[in-house]
Amino acid sequence: MDVLSVKLMALLGPKGWIGPEDCQPWQRDWLDQYGEVPLGVARPKSTSEVADVLRLCHAEGVPVVPQGGNTGLVGAGVLGEPGGVILSLSRMNAISSLDLSSGSISVEAGVILGQLHQSLEGTGLMFPMHLGSEGSAQVGGLIATNAGGSHAFRYGMMQDLVLGLEVVLADGTVWNGMRAVQKDNAGYQLRKLFCGSEGTLGIVTRAILKLSPEPKQQFTALLAVKDTSGLLKLASKLRAEGGEFLSAMEFFSDVGLGIALENIPGLVFPLQSRASFYLLVEAGSGSMQVPLDSILNEVMEWGMGEGIVVDGALAQSEAQRAVCWRLREEQPEGQLRLGAQLKHDISVSPGSIGEFLNVANEQCFELLDGVRINAFGHLGDGNVHYNLSPPIGQKDFSGREKEFAVNIARLANDMNGSFAAEHGLGRSKVALADTLRHPIERQLMARFKSALDKKNLFNPGVIVTRGGSL
Amino acid sequence: MDVLSVKLMALLGPKGWIGPEDCQPWQRDWLDQYGEVPLGVARPKSTSEVADVLRLCHAEGVPVVPQGGNTGLVGAGVLGEPGGVILSLSRMNAISSLDLSSGSISVEAGVILGQLHQSLEGTGLMFPMHLGSEGSAQVGGLIATNAGGSHAFRYGMMQDLVLGLEVVLADGTVWNGMRAVQKDNAGYQLRKLFCGSEGTLGIVTRAILKLSPEPKQQFTALLAVKDTSGLLKLASKLRAEGGEFLSAMEFFSDVGLGIALENIPGLVFPLQSRASFYLLVEAGSGSMQVPLDSILNEVMEWGMGEGIVVDGALAQSEAQRAVCWRLREEQPEGQLRLGAQLKHDISVSPGSIGEFLNVANEQCFELLDGVRINAFGHLGDGNVHYNLSPPIGQKDFSGREKEFAVNIARLANDMNGSFAAEHGLGRSKVALADTLRHPIERQLMARFKSALDKKNLFNPGVIVTRGGSL
Repeated sequence: MDVLSVKLMALLGPKGWIGPEDCQPWQRDWLDQYGEVPLGVARPKSTSEVADVLRLCHAEGVPVVPQGGNTGLVGAGVLGEPGGVILSLSRMNAISSLDLSSGSISVEAGVILGQLHQSLEGTGLMFPMHLGSEGSAQVGGLIATNAGGSHAFRYGMMQDLVLGLEVVLADGTVWNGMRAVQKDNAGYQLRKLFCGSEGTLGIVTRAILKLSPEPKQQFTALLAVKDTSGLLKLASKLRAEGGEFLSAMEFFSDVGLGIALENIPGLVFPLQSRASFYLLVEAGSGSMQVPLDSILNEVMEWGMGEGIVVDGALAQSEAQRAVCWRLREEQPEGQLRLGAQLKHDISVSPGSIGEFLNVANEQCFELLDGVRINAFGHLGDGNVHYNLSPPIGQKDFSGREKEFAVNIARLANDMNGSFAAEHGLGRSKVALADTLRHPIERQLMARFKSALDKKNLFNPGVIVTRGGSL
Repeated sequence: MDVLSVKLMALLGPKGWIGPEDCQPWQRDWLDQYGEVPLGVARPKSTSEVADVLRLCHAEGVPVVPQGGNTGLVGAGVLGEPGGVILSLSRMNAISSLDLSSGSISVEAGVILGQLHQSLEGTGLMFPMHLGSEGSAQVGGLIATNAGGSHAFRYGMMQDLVLGLEVVLADGTVWNGMRAVQKDNAGYQLRKLFCGSEGTLGIVTRAILKLSPEPKQQFTALLAVKDTSGLLKLASKLRAEGGEFLSAMEFFSDVGLGIALENIPGLVFPLQSRASFYLLVEAGSGSMQVPLDSILNEVMEWGMGEGIVVDGALAQSEAQRAVCWRLREEQPEGQLRLGAQLKHDISVSPGSIGEFLNVANEQCFELLDGVRINAFGHLGDGNVHYNLSPPIGQKDFSGREKEFAVNIARLANDMNGSFAAEHGLGRSKVALADTLRHPIERQLMARFKSALDKKNLFNPGVIVTRGGSL
């Protein structure tokens, strides 16, 4: 065993240090695309242990990759080259200091999102971030990714929900920014910069998160929608009539529905008719005096009158609500089980989704006739998961993977949008960023990286390739 | 005339370059506390002229201080030492690309906030930032300050409202980050970092701002409230019953009301009774089906039943609404006209405002018996403008200015809050930051400064003192 491993094992004990022979559960990413054999997995149980690990690795020049629930989709939580240390935060999972009167809570980085949701049940407050992987995703990883999810257009992304942060820096020093206020203009917004830094600038160990009042009533409906243009008209009407109540406007296509129904046992489709698209609408209010059903039903009726909404069902119970949400949230898993797939995570301004889909679809069919386009995502913020499966009867993409990725990314970029909307750059999109974003932007990022991580030991190869050298 | 002035005049023309003899309107800050004689005032009319100015100044090693509406309160928009160039953005005031379907707008940095509000009238959309100086404050300055204001707890601070940015860097290169999406995780959140950087990292020249649907109905009430504890109970009840509708919960004290009524002609107090505190409540909804008046009147009645609300008036017209808002917004001007004053801009978690006021008041009276405490601000986000006037019959603070500042700042800091909530650090609070914030935080900021402005030419002395050297 090498000297560093011996030191880390002595520091962390047998529960805290896992050698390379036992580290399969941490080694590969969720999509099984990245992940080299590490020196080992460090599992510290406190901020000071994290600091000690970093001091040792820093002294030895050994790279460190922080890992949360390992649900990321861009390879940012595993090693790009063998021999580094994976730093798992999962043992740091304490929830403390719920402040009911101010609406905030203090959590350690390893707290699983679903556990945070559960811990708040019955308090009248909630943490308003929801995404498919919430049963595994950890707060630290969500911060590092600047996660978005289905409720972001109402409540914000992770950077909007973080009030305070504690971060361990490259040399093991600890920045304590655990403040509990929205307004803190005492210099640069460090807390915002660490959100989305994907473990390349520091290790987030604790956070103070902003909570929201839990709605007292909720409305959930699944609608079958004629076409893209109808989808956008409906979204626009929903925003106009029920803007402050809307918490989710999730869409998926009939292609995706079919793939999910075929590949995921137990899914139920609650409507009579199929259509090109489906819209899952959720709204909530903190006041029982708001006629929420009436406000939203009027929009549904308008949609039916216009011929936009072909069919629809209101969830009358929590169980029915879960049925609707599963259809949307099993989209990624359904496509994964189908076999080869290409995932693209883009955003354009919400009003331009139709234009994006029209042009992207045309380009994709030109590249590979019959390719199955499974576009789903978040109508409220223009974030589309534009995923592809091979044509029926074909196992692969005829070698056009890179062309798909570049075309779709370039289209979003040219429309003043993003080719890395909520999943981040990680390892998989660094080359795209170098191609599509201006060198000035890439150099700015490299300078920040270099300013905080001179030795390039934090997640090397993620976000910036050149290790911060200019 | 020196060589740089000659070059700048040749570049910018007579309208674009104002020599030191004519630059009084730009030289001093609003509180007349800072501002040395500049080499001149550059007034470029395009991004490329800004870039040219910076290239010339960079080559000559001459400091540049960007200035918007010059309404800042911490001396960040004027020179700390003679001989630099003031870069006024006021000629760059174009508003373009209103995107109705996506809710965004593109503006140049010199657009005045009030003009932006006006330009959106009748569109169904609004830019939801409001503060006392909106008739002069410019978008670029609001971004540089990361302004907050009265509606921030519902709609966010400037960093939450900026989708895209264009920034000119120290050497005159231009970062074009003019994207129009909320979700853009293609690397570090540069757009967030420039918000609140007070002109020390780059010059913001254009922005894409996020708009919100304009409420279709509004509720405004002015309430006289018994005491601090009543104020907090009322705020908590308002959040619980009308959370998603509340857009402002502004409080001020009877001390501040008295000072304003005495010093500002034309103010009207619309209530019958005086009390220790006043709360200005504003709420809005995008749906006419919401019984807004009923929801909020129930809370008022609850407050009266509990003996918390002593008196109250609902604004029945836009004119009555303006009467209420003027009482709150003339607080700073009223106190300025009274004579010497000490301004403190702190935040604590909203539930801790009562504790903060109790302890701070006690400390202040101990330091100077009879000192007049004018605390007002934003109940929703815990931001208190804790301003002092000398005791009646006294013109100054008996030399205890610094003790007041340090005590109040330390108290907010120790309560996990901020001593620089929404006005920034500027020149006036850098020493406080060096005293109260951990050296690690200060060093992080110095590293970012150094990474973007090696020569320390952007607003030297603001945010970090040491020019980025560590």
